[in-house]
Amino acid sequence: MSNERIPVGILGATGMVGQEFVSFLRDHPWFDLTWLGASDRSAGKPYHEATVWRLGGETPAYVRDIVVSESKPAHGTKHALKLVFSAMDASVATEIEQAFASAGHIIVSNSRNHRMDPDVPLLVPEINADHLKLIDVQQKQRGWKGQIVTNPNCSTVVLVMALAALKPFGIKRVIVTTMQAISGAGYPGVASMDINANVVPFIGGEEEKMQQETQKILGDFTGAAIEPLAAKVSAHCNRVPVVDGHTITVSVELEKKPSESEVLAAWRAWRGEPQRKGLPSAPPCPVIYVHEKDRPQPRRDVERENGMAVFVGRLRKCPVLDYKFVALGHNTVRGAAGAAVLNAEVMKAEGYLDR
Amino acid sequence: MSNERIPVGILGATGMVGQEFVSFLRDHPWFDLTWLGASDRSAGKPYHEATVWRLGGETPAYVRDIVVSESKPAHGTKHALKLVFSAMDASVATEIEQAFASAGHIIVSNSRNHRMDPDVPLLVPEINADHLKLIDVQQKQRGWKGQIVTNPNCSTVVLVMALAALKPFGIKRVIVTTMQAISGAGYPGVASMDINANVVPFIGGEEEKMQQETQKILGDFTGAAIEPLAAKVSAHCNRVPVVDGHTITVSVELEKKPSESEVLAAWRAWRGEPQRKGLPSAPPCPVIYVHEKDRPQPRRDVERENGMAVFVGRLRKCPVLDYKFVALGHNTVRGAAGAAVLNAEVMKAEGYLDR
Amino acid sequence: MSNERIPVGILGATGMVGQEFVSFLRDHPWFDLTWLGASDRSAGKPYHEATVWRLGGETPAYVRDIVVSESKPAHGTKHALKLVFSAMDASVATEIEQAFASAGHIIVSNSRNHRMDPDVPLLVPEINADHLKLIDVQQKQRGWKGQIVTNPNCSTVVLVMALAALKPFGIKRVIVTTMQAISGAGYPGVASMDINANVVPFIGGEEEKMQQETQKILGDFTGAAIEPLAAKVSAHCNRVPVVDGHTITVSVELEKKPSESEVLAAWRAWRGEPQRKGLPSAPPCPVIYVHEKDRPQPRRDVERENGMAVFVGRLRKCPVLDYKFVALGHNTVRGAAGAAVLNAEVMKAEGYLDR
Amino acid sequence: MSNERIPVGILGATGMVGQEFVSFLRDHPWFDLTWLGASDRSAGKPYHEATVWRLGGETPAYVRDIVVSESKPAHGTKHALKLVFSAMDASVATEIEQAFASAGHIIVSNSRNHRMDPDVPLLVPEINADHLKLIDVQQKQRGWKGQIVTNPNCSTVVLVMALAALKPFGIKRVIVTTMQAISGAGYPGVASMDINANVVPFIGGEEEKMQQETQKILGDFTGAAIEPLAAKVSAHCNRVPVVDGHTITVSVELEKKPSESEVLAAWRAWRGEPQRKGLPSAPPCPVIYVHEKDRPQPRRDVERENGMAVFVGRLRKCPVLDYKFVALGHNTVRGAAGAAVLNAEVMKAEGYLDR
Repeated sequence: MSNERIPVGILGATGMVGQEFVSFLRDHPWFDLTWLGASDRSAGKPYHEATVWRLGGETPAYVRDIVVSESKPAHGTKHALKLVFSAMDASVATEIEQAFASAGHIIVSNSRNHRMDPDVPLLVPEINADHLKLIDVQQKQRGWKGQIVTNPNCSTVVLVMALAALKPFGIKRVIVTTMQAISGAGYPGVASMDINANVVPFIGGEEEKMQQETQKILGDFTGAAIEPLAAKVSAHCNRVPVVDGHTITVSVELEKKPSESEVLAAWRAWRGEPQRKGLPSAPPCPVIYVHEKDRPQPRRDVERENGMAVFVGRLRKCPVLDYKFVALGHNTVRGAAGAAVLNAEVMKAEGYLDR
Repeated sequence: MSNERIPVGILGATGMVGQEFVSFLRDHPWFDLTWLGASDRSAGKPYHEATVWRLGGETPAYVRDIVVSESKPAHGTKHALKLVFSAMDASVATEIEQAFASAGHIIVSNSRNHRMDPDVPLLVPEINADHLKLIDVQQKQRGWKGQIVTNPNCSTVVLVMALAALKPFGIKRVIVTTMQAISGAGYPGVASMDINANVVPFIGGEEEKMQQETQKILGDFTGAAIEPLAAKVSAHCNRVPVVDGHTITVSVELEKKPSESEVLAAWRAWRGEPQRKGLPSAPPCPVIYVHEKDRPQPRRDVERENGMAVFVGRLRKCPVLDYKFVALGHNTVRGAAGAAVLNAEVMKAEGYLDR
Repeated sequence: MSNERIPVGILGATGMVGQEFVSFLRDHPWFDLTWLGASDRSAGKPYHEATVWRLGGETPAYVRDIVVSESKPAHGTKHALKLVFSAMDASVATEIEQAFASAGHIIVSNSRNHRMDPDVPLLVPEINADHLKLIDVQQKQRGWKGQIVTNPNCSTVVLVMALAALKPFGIKRVIVTTMQAISGAGYPGVASMDINANVVPFIGGEEEKMQQETQKILGDFTGAAIEPLAAKVSAHCNRVPVVDGHTITVSVELEKKPSESEVLAAWRAWRGEPQRKGLPSAPPCPVIYVHEKDRPQPRRDVERENGMAVFVGRLRKCPVLDYKFVALGHNTVRGAAGAAVLNAEVMKAEGYLDR
Repeated sequence: MSNERIPVGILGATGMVGQEFVSFLRDHPWFDLTWLGASDRSAGKPYHEATVWRLGGETPAYVRDIVVSESKPAHGTKHALKLVFSAMDASVATEIEQAFASAGHIIVSNSRNHRMDPDVPLLVPEINADHLKLIDVQQKQRGWKGQIVTNPNCSTVVLVMALAALKPFGIKRVIVTTMQAISGAGYPGVASMDINANVVPFIGGEEEKMQQETQKILGDFTGAAIEPLAAKVSAHCNRVPVVDGHTITVSVELEKKPSESEVLAAWRAWRGEPQRKGLPSAPPCPVIYVHEKDRPQPRRDVERENGMAVFVGRLRKCPVLDYKFVALGHNTVRGAAGAAVLNAEVMKAEGYLDR
């Protein structure tokens, strides 16, 4: 790998997810954030003027004065920009992402629009780095020099990280209930009148995403396509008054009926490409079992490991399926900006950025 | 039924659950609250001095000046008191409740201590009013003139109310995740440092209670005992920052594979003894289906129907079991004080208070 | 007063404040809600279809099927509608309210637009029912047959209700800090990402309103205009994560240096026209002193007295001014819908609806 | 200053404040935490067994296996321990702190017990590092070889940091209202039933502390004692549902009537001994003015500058006194553990640890 730093951009840079990318990329050892794309309304303004900074503290100094560009590939290319992270709203992402990919850019997207396209990798690099091989299919079918790679929905990633180590035991059926943080809905997102001291037992489209994305992510690359995991997955999605961190309860049926200690050992031993390659954003242990009886908890555990690990706890027998447990992940880090950056890192490590 | 008003008492009257009984019994058409029992520390003081009132507003005027008694049967009897509600903490309830029952009192208890005793009814009168026949067994076995009748745990009652109408379809397996309000833990209960903007994915003993109590409540009285429902039940219990109202997500497998409209019709048609007898605290419809896609919600629905109905919503197919849905109930009303008072009402209506 | 029921309407009926009017007017002994005005987008639809009901429970049955009208006087008149409550957003209220008043309607408005107009009463009927005499000036100056009467901002009303009884002591200087509920900002209002586990120490325009409105409300009608109270008022306005109820801390300087017991006695004795006339929405005591050392509190006190009283507590010496205390009022009831309805009641009682 | 690391201990190490000391001292460049004192119940156990870790993540590895000692000087001395931080509860701090000081230890205490003693420095080292000279008086009067130095209450520190730069303008009168975080009350501290979606307008003893401590801290050392600042201070203290960070609103009267830009310049220029000496825990700017109109906010600003700066904003004219503004500080860092550690650092820098 060359030591040259790689210029990168963000599409949708002024929104909440865009701000999370800006935060996460600060001091990145490989990527230099040099281009910020947003709507025409923001284009032409310095980033700190185009943006109401919603995260903690102030607009980071390193992007403060970057002038925001229009979301058009031409603007990107003049910076010799190859890698572009997409933080765009689903309502506009489809066409813009395709235009960039068609113009030769590598789009690493957090948007949901292309996740379920058969020729687009839905990547969790600890789990399915080999799904990147779909890019050959994608480029051939679409006639693109560029690429689109996606990361999953913020609640899906918590589930699949917790399940991946159990795949060798034969995952047959999964029932999951989520208690999702408000930051998952962006800004202004959830009205305080809806969620203050309340639970909202519905998040539009979320259950379908969790069910389908889980099967694709845990599926196998057959050489030409992804064969989804045959497991049945049922999701109940809820919003709760928590700032960051999606907590989920999971009941799972496993074909090989492992013992509790075998399940714990599987989690403990589980590593993926990011760990083997020592990628900059990779958590040393992607899944961490928390032994305290009332953990993991979003407010106390979500910031650990820079928000990049998933925490599991309370493994016990399930009277209906085989096991039940709790899992927690940082929805705006491991479930959004951090996920996309780790995707780009594994792509760099495997040469996909050099094609 | 005679029109004479019935004097009643409360054991554990100064605690949080005791205060909920005091609130719920105000203006009761049948029961006159005349006796308040508490610890020796409180005995001898007027109720408003013995109590820091934790509910809304002020200590209700009708009990303000009642002098608190020691928790001993003798104190009760001098008021010719037969019916005593127990709001006692589990740490002391076993012996005191037994002493009162042994002395001839009818104890209608919200405490968990005797719920799973084979000869004690665990009553949800819409569901299993016939379990009251256990009292004959209880009195005979224990040699008591009095009785102990219990109501379920505050999260169990939400589940069983939602399931009862489905019993004719053959309930085989149930997976339930709770999002429980802080009021379920009493006072001081949950520390704000634990639950502010947080989820605590553990409540001691709660999952076991939900699993066992559900089977007993939905079970059948065989003439001498309760044959528990054979269904398998698995519970995941969580605390969330909500004041009142336990929200649960449920996946259920049903032997007879009813259609969605049959399930909806079953809930709509479902009534029990309290409704048939028009008991004062009975909600006209014990289970109400809410059609809005993001309801029921604790803050918006929990106070409806005086907190005595259970609200269900979001019925849809479950990819793993047969159906999934959301349910909500008021944990300190339908799950505690209101439950016990409705128990006493059905006991009155069926003559158990006159024995 | 005739016993005939009075048909009334609501402008801005589908919004959050409109819904609060709908709630508050249910079962009103004098007023029949027969007309609901809203934007063109809603006009022509039954209310329950035009509205996403944001308050507790369901859209009240009594208005469910009323067809929403356009916000034009002509639509009102065909119902022979004289009295119209305005719950309109400030961005549109000026012209529509004036059009209605000009067409002969009596507009009792919760909007801020006309509050500070010199010829418009800013009414808190316990305090300044005599300011209604401004209507003669208003009708003459504007050439209207109709009228506009307003109620104050939701935080102002808590302050002036607490101060009014102290006016005879000579109010010289007031410093007030508010901790305001999220419901004061309507729907969607405050983003949960802004207020969850947070304080926002700014509410646009609120401090100016509290300072000016307080002087006008506590001012004197001179025969032709309102002479504002000469007191200096300084407000610090903050949003806190509370659903309903604005809590304020007040330091006040009083010319006559009353004793603490004189202040308490003044609050205790204080009554206004609504109490003397026994108006249907009038609280028996408009200001209630709460003796517990840590009260009033929004979640525990705001619903008392149907939300129409203001609660004060913690009266003590202020080392800088003379006294300090806490006050609390229900911002969407006494601070909005309830305030306007009480205004209409006093106007009815004094014959203003019959002109 | 020698480069030798200094062994330090914590009294009350297992409590919430003790845990904050443990967190704050991790990786401290001067101090080595080698001794942990707690109640007899904890003594003899490894720290991680004696403690339920309430902060984020896990018990820090560097103290996990330190065996907890009894809170007796003898135990301390065998480690040649001179500097001991006190995180003890006020109910036990007086005697134990005195015993340690009497035995020659330097007690840097967060407890309130000795703060107002005339011969004990109440230190905010940016403001009154010269008050350390009181130690001579203290040692002489009490016959101690050791010392006791204290830091202020967690809400006082926010006020005095904001006021100190204004002292040259002649502070005459101050009215302050606090909105204090739940972490200020320790663990279990505030019951969630008291504070969830609520405001509690009372914190026992807090207003008196803010009023008196402010005068002492901003006072002048006369050679033998502290002459308190003559300013009048009035505090209204409230608890709000925020995790960390006390927000205060302040109105202040200033003798010299500075312009707004003079006030801003005073804050901007203000530095103290910790900044001049470059102490390890000193924030580069102790007071930071935030220009956004709705800031500072606890959730968005409290973690900045490692929690050691105080943030001010919204400076504007006060119609009653001269200016009003908002201030925010981290109550468990700048208001507790961080404050004490910074005290110890300035004491080290000025030679007080070597006496």
